[in-house]
Amino acid sequence: MSFSQSHLLGIEPLHPTEITTILDLADQYVDLNRQANKHADALTGLTQINMFFENSTRTQASFELAGKRLGADVMNMAMQASSIKKGETLIDTALTLNAMHPDLLVVRHPHSGAVDLLAQKVNCAVLNAGDGRHEHPTQALLDALTIRRAKGRLHRLSIAICGDIAHSRVARSNIILLGKMENRVRLVGPPTLMPSGISEFGVEVYDDMREGLKDVDVVMMLRLQRERMDGGFIPSEREYFHRYGLDAEKLSHAKDDAIVMHPGPMNRGVEIDGTIADDINRSVIQEQVEMGVAVRMAAMDLLARNLRARRAEGKEVMA
Amino acid sequence: MSFSQSHLLGIEPLHPTEITTILDLADQYVDLNRQANKHADALTGLTQINMFFENSTRTQASFELAGKRLGADVMNMAMQASSIKKGETLIDTALTLNAMHPDLLVVRHPHSGAVDLLAQKVNCAVLNAGDGRHEHPTQALLDALTIRRAKGRLHRLSIAICGDIAHSRVARSNIILLGKMENRVRLVGPPTLMPSGISEFGVEVYDDMREGLKDVDVVMMLRLQRERMDGGFIPSEREYFHRYGLDAEKLSHAKDDAIVMHPGPMNRGVEIDGTIADDINRSVIQEQVEMGVAVRMAAMDLLARNLRARRAEGKEVMA
Amino acid sequence: MSFSQSHLLGIEPLHPTEITTILDLADQYVDLNRQANKHADALTGLTQINMFFENSTRTQASFELAGKRLGADVMNMAMQASSIKKGETLIDTALTLNAMHPDLLVVRHPHSGAVDLLAQKVNCAVLNAGDGRHEHPTQALLDALTIRRAKGRLHRLSIAICGDIAHSRVARSNIILLGKMENRVRLVGPPTLMPSGISEFGVEVYDDMREGLKDVDVVMMLRLQRERMDGGFIPSEREYFHRYGLDAEKLSHAKDDAIVMHPGPMNRGVEIDGTIADDINRSVIQEQVEMGVAVRMAAMDLLARNLRARRAEGKEVMA
Repeated sequence: MSFSQSHLLGIEPLHPTEITTILDLADQYVDLNRQANKHADALTGLTQINMFFENSTRTQASFELAGKRLGADVMNMAMQASSIKKGETLIDTALTLNAMHPDLLVVRHPHSGAVDLLAQKVNCAVLNAGDGRHEHPTQALLDALTIRRAKGRLHRLSIAICGDIAHSRVARSNIILLGKMENRVRLVGPPTLMPSGISEFGVEVYDDMREGLKDVDVVMMLRLQRERMDGGFIPSEREYFHRYGLDAEKLSHAKDDAIVMHPGPMNRGVEIDGTIADDINRSVIQEQVEMGVAVRMAAMDLLARNLRARRAEGKEVMA
Repeated sequence: MSFSQSHLLGIEPLHPTEITTILDLADQYVDLNRQANKHADALTGLTQINMFFENSTRTQASFELAGKRLGADVMNMAMQASSIKKGETLIDTALTLNAMHPDLLVVRHPHSGAVDLLAQKVNCAVLNAGDGRHEHPTQALLDALTIRRAKGRLHRLSIAICGDIAHSRVARSNIILLGKMENRVRLVGPPTLMPSGISEFGVEVYDDMREGLKDVDVVMMLRLQRERMDGGFIPSEREYFHRYGLDAEKLSHAKDDAIVMHPGPMNRGVEIDGTIADDINRSVIQEQVEMGVAVRMAAMDLLARNLRARRAEGKEVMA
Repeated sequence: MSFSQSHLLGIEPLHPTEITTILDLADQYVDLNRQANKHADALTGLTQINMFFENSTRTQASFELAGKRLGADVMNMAMQASSIKKGETLIDTALTLNAMHPDLLVVRHPHSGAVDLLAQKVNCAVLNAGDGRHEHPTQALLDALTIRRAKGRLHRLSIAICGDIAHSRVARSNIILLGKMENRVRLVGPPTLMPSGISEFGVEVYDDMREGLKDVDVVMMLRLQRERMDGGFIPSEREYFHRYGLDAEKLSHAKDDAIVMHPGPMNRGVEIDGTIADDINRSVIQEQVEMGVAVRMAAMDLLARNLRARRAEGKEVMA
């Protein structure tokens, strides 16, 4: 297997063959999760700590189940209520946890780059579960696996990412991954929700949903991140749905077999019409969640293998 | 064993022999829980998710320990703070969790019927841990087990359920269960805390504690659910205790060997005199808690057997 | 092994050989925690409940990992949000949990003596994780292990405990332990943060840091417990650091090989200069955290052995 990373901090550092390695292993874990007995022992005897500085029911649950099914001892830490309040710095918190000898540290943090910083201070494998507007690599990987299983391939596809691109680490990680795998990525949304300098990523930008969705294989809707919008333009939900919400008419411009994705949680009637979301012939939204557990199992399994190999070579330095 | 249910949504759908099946198996788990090594493997490799939309320390703890002792991977989700806030619907939350392939879903929800609704959307076994004023089946089962062990039988007993009947799903599930097993149930409490149409259940209703407790085998006190009283009559605690609180004098009207029960948490000096609650010759309140873990182990074990059987027959439909 | 306790409620009841027994076993667990597979089975089949009536990220995490690595089923209960709100007493909460047959109960409580009271009501092993200003025995034990490993011995050392002594259960447990092991303990801090009657403990008291640190082997800094200061003197952080904060100049008065300790979380620039805290030649602060997990594993292992022995002799009384 080709996977030489010590951490999973983003999609950026991954080689395409590494992405394929994760997805191939994840396919096996999909099968395991559908069985009655969902246990494997890839992480037996290892300690996984989930440090969430932002709330996230679904992502934390997905990592927790992934770890438990692989036999890890999993500990959740809700960091808002904790030492942070007592004035401790992020680095001190990280060093403290590191001294407890975790093997896998899953971190979500509201600041871009916080997880990278933390990874430099610890001697275990760190997984980025979302940092600010920067990256959310396991989301991009689960989206990729969902697409590959639905479309039979993960290259030369035309994929529209729609909505609030500017505030979305999901969009950012997806753009990078889909680009690495040689797909054509379009960004569709209001100019006010489009990041500046986006053209550098080799994407096409559309303001009009009908034009943007024309003949695409995949329609990837994003969540309106109202909680991250500070001042500036905040569209009314009704107006937003009218122009950018996915409904049957707008979807009709995509290919007949185009799939519909959403990272959840959905605002029905804002980003997406409920009927589309529930249409099992088009929507793969539930499958995305299912792939999420499998992809996280694969990523933690691969990182743990590298961690064990590094330790066997005595390369690990005690903090 | 006679137990053909896919879910445990209430006492209502259970056949008396199914109730007996649960209690018989629970008796075995009582023995296990009293040993040094409390582990069995009935749920090994299975995933149990506790979704509590209302706080409940003791019920959640009881389900959590029950699952862990049977070898399940148990995940708690405090739903108040989660996606619900982000505008996700109950159904979307359920579908999301379902896509993670849980085997057992334990749900508490403030709205009557919410758990039934949820059970229709998922393809795992759902256990109702209390929904609004509707049902709380594991509480009725643990009460039944406590009574059966104390009295040697669970039929032809005279049982008084006392206090705030109107707001109590505990009372409702108990009335149904005790009726199914052919006991004589009396409801004792102020008319303002008595539900309308209660006579349909084949129970006797009393306003006076001394009359209501006369010659009963079991005195089951309820918690004053002040948090569920919206406007209307709210009695003062002192007045309530004087008229409806269980003290030695009122208890003297019951049979000499009558047992005293309370689902907890107790308001000492409101529903019940502390001395009575602590009297190990009369009170079985601690034993109720002990039976709670055992009954939940039994219920989850039986549901998991049916789930495995259904899957082996290929009857399960993927969401 | 010499360890005859049923509970770990404080350092006070421990015989010096019992302290040595815990530390010797903890040394073995330090080795285990540094391995890839961190699992032992000392607590397999046992149930550990962490009841924290005060928040504490690091102490709770340390106990949780300790239990999980030894194979226990670990359940965390955040007690603030729970039944306590519904008016249940501490004793009722304890009796309720006890009826669920835990084997190990780890308790933190804001009131001195609350943990001792609770231990009288249950028939499992209770570990005090900090009660009011009374004791925090596992902190003193982890400090002792850290000192013993750094200095090669735990007797005839000169140790300065500095800062907010009055509000510190950490200081109190350390003073008792270090005294039992025949060390010379100095307390250094402002008279307003020095408890009354402290001279009874056989310690020397200093107001001046330079005098207090002169030629000591160990400098143990404490956290300013602003949250426990009710009215009275609250120093400004700047003034406090100037007079009592540990910096290079003040530390130069200690022995050349003196180690620097802090129980965390640190207020950098208040109690301690960041450069000192990060100096791996002097600071053993990260090692304290590492020792914490090992000491808790050792304490729970020893208590579980005694619990099993007591049960085998049939000495346990059901609640």
